[in-house]
Amino acid sequence: MLNLFEKSDLIPAIIQDANTNEVVMLGYMNEASLKLTLETGRTWFYSRSRQQLWNKGETSGHFQNVKSIYYDCDADTLLIKAEQIGNACHTGEFSCFHNKLYESGE
Amino acid sequence: MLNLFEKSDLIPAIIQDANTNEVVMLGYMNEASLKLTLETGRTWFYSRSRQQLWNKGETSGHFQNVKSIYYDCDADTLLIKAEQIGNACHTGEFSCFHNKLYESGE
Repeated sequence: MLNLFEKSDLIPAIIQDANTNEVVMLGYMNEASLKLTLETGRTWFYSRSRQQLWNKGETSGHFQNVKSIYYDCDADTLLIKAEQIGNACHTGEFSCFHNKLYESGE
Repeated sequence: MLNLFEKSDLIPAIIQDANTNEVVMLGYMNEASLKLTLETGRTWFYSRSRQQLWNKGETSGHFQNVKSIYYDCDADTLLIKAEQIGNACHTGEFSCFHNKLYESGE
């Protein structure tokens, strides 16, 4: 059987908004958080700093309703398409990726 | 000055095709590979298994021409929009995320 956690207990999960196709965040999942995600239809992650499971939107109400989950050819990364309620970022931006490092032609 | 490699020598870089907005792969970058990416306008990664820098497309010709680079609110993940030449995946699929784990309503 497929074991996504064979190489590592934690794997990155890319969250892409299903409506806009915007990549809104990357979180880490362990087996327990993936199981909770599949059971509840909302994203659960494992916080490396707090060392605990967390349900995205739990405090903010900005849940992510999961539409699909794909894994990559190495089976060590997840791509989750979800309906982002409100904003993904705690700063109030829709996406956590709002800081520009480089843009071609600038 | 911003140090993306303060917490870790390697950070994940999400590659999103600039034309289709499809997420095509996730690779890891260290400071040297990010520098090469910025200098050449094509993606360079650090291979954790081979423990060396690699230029995506070097052998296949399937280069990724970088359009923009953003970092997230934690400054520990990159989102790179690039023009994907050919296919991102070594299997011949356009995206490395072609294996379905879950789809809502199925």
